[in-house]
Amino acid sequence: MPGFDDVTASATRIAPFVHRTPVITSRSLDEWLGCTAFVKAEHLQRVGAFKFRGATNAVQSLSEDDARRGVAAHSSGNHAAALALAAATRGIRCDIVMPKDAHAVKLQAVGRYGARITLSERTVESREATLRRVVEETGAVEVHPFDNVDVIAGAGTAMLELCDAVDGLDVVVTPVGGGGLSSGTCIAAHGIDPSIRVLGGEPARADDAARSLATGTRQPPLPPTTIADGLLTGLSERTFAILREHLDAIVTVGEDEIVAAMRVVWERTKQLVEPSAAVAFAAARKASLDGARVGIICSGGNVDLDALPWAAGDA
Amino acid sequence: MPGFDDVTASATRIAPFVHRTPVITSRSLDEWLGCTAFVKAEHLQRVGAFKFRGATNAVQSLSEDDARRGVAAHSSGNHAAALALAAATRGIRCDIVMPKDAHAVKLQAVGRYGARITLSERTVESREATLRRVVEETGAVEVHPFDNVDVIAGAGTAMLELCDAVDGLDVVVTPVGGGGLSSGTCIAAHGIDPSIRVLGGEPARADDAARSLATGTRQPPLPPTTIADGLLTGLSERTFAILREHLDAIVTVGEDEIVAAMRVVWERTKQLVEPSAAVAFAAARKASLDGARVGIICSGGNVDLDALPWAAGDA
Repeated sequence: MPGFDDVTASATRIAPFVHRTPVITSRSLDEWLGCTAFVKAEHLQRVGAFKFRGATNAVQSLSEDDARRGVAAHSSGNHAAALALAAATRGIRCDIVMPKDAHAVKLQAVGRYGARITLSERTVESREATLRRVVEETGAVEVHPFDNVDVIAGAGTAMLELCDAVDGLDVVVTPVGGGGLSSGTCIAAHGIDPSIRVLGGEPARADDAARSLATGTRQPPLPPTTIADGLLTGLSERTFAILREHLDAIVTVGEDEIVAAMRVVWERTKQLVEPSAAVAFAAARKASLDGARVGIICSGGNVDLDALPWAAGDA
Repeated sequence: MPGFDDVTASATRIAPFVHRTPVITSRSLDEWLGCTAFVKAEHLQRVGAFKFRGATNAVQSLSEDDARRGVAAHSSGNHAAALALAAATRGIRCDIVMPKDAHAVKLQAVGRYGARITLSERTVESREATLRRVVEETGAVEVHPFDNVDVIAGAGTAMLELCDAVDGLDVVVTPVGGGGLSSGTCIAAHGIDPSIRVLGGEPARADDAARSLATGTRQPPLPPTTIADGLLTGLSERTFAILREHLDAIVTVGEDEIVAAMRVVWERTKQLVEPSAAVAFAAARKASLDGARVGIICSGGNVDLDALPWAAGDA
């Protein structure tokens, strides 16, 4: 289990490689949210997502011997690009398993950073089997996108920076997918001030974390049907345990609420945030945090501009 | 004619009311542009556009007697919202003439700031006649969107701040519409360092400034057919004279180049910039400014999200 010391050590380790992202405020966004928001702009992080923090921490934590083996992961999302760039930054080999039907833009992004891509079928079984084969062949170290102490500690550094920049936060809100970002944020927040309330935002259509916390037993994810495509994964035993200990509540939001939040953030802050990040904004609004000082971890900005959710109805 | 002193005086006058916008840099944007760019982020200015600087300077420069008369303008774009908020900030009356077919979002924005809206027909003649009637009825002071010394001086303050934040700029690029922003930028740039090259970006489909400078005679604007809807207006005698004296060149860009630039800026910087602002990026790329340190005045971020230029082909 990662602790607060791991987060602070991670911050020092990754500082030379990551952007210290700005904190964005907006009066008109506050009006919409009903609170005073401090947006940690991880969509402006390298590769456009907080994932670069954890991937960099994992890669930079490797011993020389392990680094020589290279790293590997299966991912069709931000973790793939993050790990590829983190490996390139250390000059080591990176293997990424991606499903055949991954978006061309995502394949290109990973390829641009010099990672070797192996295609799999779309199913989780095929992805995992393909990754096992790649790891056997190459001897690479697997870096899981969230079920990894270094990745969680790295993710927590965003909250560390936010608390450094903003005093007296009452609440912090993050999106919840596999639980890496929310776990890291919990550990960082409560290491700094145990009174900070930590809320998770989760799509109602992918509410396994909410159900897991409500029942006290880890629940499997439903078939993925949400626009927030970074939040499809279920919790691991590790992230479930961390969230049970630290998280105050999960706020589930519908697809309409996610799309509305995304559009409001775009219009009022001129920042391109992705649907998964918009979940945190939607949850903050829904939680009615009257007048509170609220940190929002804006997880990423990688949007498919050819498939915007409001295009169908209005174009 | 406004001089450098007017720009510096304006900067002091408007400082309490405007955002000191950040300067954005991006390695991957630089790769695309072929130079080292420093983006003055006026899309993050209040009302989402640099126009708030000039409008605020004009409103705050009014004598008490004139202020009591209120201000008026005809505009369907960023100047309307800018003048409305500038007037509200001083607590004075504002009348805006807008064409009947103006976008509902723009009407709402102006209304939200408390301005009184009078609708006109779409033609320039109708807008001007309606404005004359409003001014006669109310006694308001007309604040022209660009043919106004205070507005031009106010617009120049963005360049002043950019030079304050970034040393050794070789070039600065602005979009050119009526010439207010480009004139203010010229005056500020050459007041600071006469060796800074100032380039204007103009849509090829609205290239009256390029033709005016090429022929030495002010040319009327063509019928407006560009996506860069903030750049439809022709120069005034005043802005034409300033640009003739100061501007190094105008780079005209096609619609495809504007759309491509807008999309690249969105994807690589996660910043929502409007088509008129994208013209400056497209021009900077086209000018092949190899290795130069290039300021780009990113004029605004008010985008119609229901009518994105790439939606038609791909959605």
